[in-house]
Amino acid sequence: MIEKIILEQKIKEIKKPWSPLQIARINNYVIRIALFDGEYHWHKHEDEDELFYVYKGKIIIQIENQQDLTLNEGEMVLIPKRVMHCPKSIEPSYVLLFEPITLKSSGTR
Amino acid sequence: MIEKIILEQKIKEIKKPWSPLQIARINNYVIRIALFDGEYHWHKHEDEDELFYVYKGKIIIQIENQQDLTLNEGEMVLIPKRVMHCPKSIEPSYVLLFEPITLKSSGTR
Repeated sequence: MIEKIILEQKIKEIKKPWSPLQIARINNYVIRIALFDGEYHWHKHEDEDELFYVYKGKIIIQIENQQDLTLNEGEMVLIPKRVMHCPKSIEPSYVLLFEPITLKSSGTR
Repeated sequence: MIEKIILEQKIKEIKKPWSPLQIARINNYVIRIALFDGEYHWHKHEDEDELFYVYKGKIIIQIENQQDLTLNEGEMVLIPKRVMHCPKSIEPSYVLLFEPITLKSSGTR
């Protein structure tokens, strides 16, 4: 029995920021949803691109060697592998992450 | 220079239903956005799971051997490979598709 995934319900399961919750697996990829609250840390992924999509709220993605990107609801950005980046929230925000299952995005800061 | 992707702008580029527009590539995956208007056709994908996420509108995903799923905005469903399914719209709707780049979802009906 295939069931739908309701983001409004999923976000209620999130108890703390920067701890993505897996909501779907697509072959060897996962979609996760996370609460962004405050600032994460600068990092990069050696082998994986990563996509951020703002479901609710407003965030900034800081990216090395370019101006910050402000993402509103309904906006996304693809961060290519090996690009240093650091997300932070303008307000507490729920963000979908689309990434290879090999990528460890759950996070201590 | 990494730029953000604004779904409100992307949907303006879509001229006809069931013709997904690629908006991001993540390693060997793509995110596409499509206008669902009317009914597609029953089909399955042999090797690939596929995810549907309703950005705007309201759709039904008909799935073999189970009841239809109605998806509202902010809701998604993962259709595993080899499961027959047939999307249709309740109203003209914009839907994000997450799928392997190998999957041909653009579509004659």
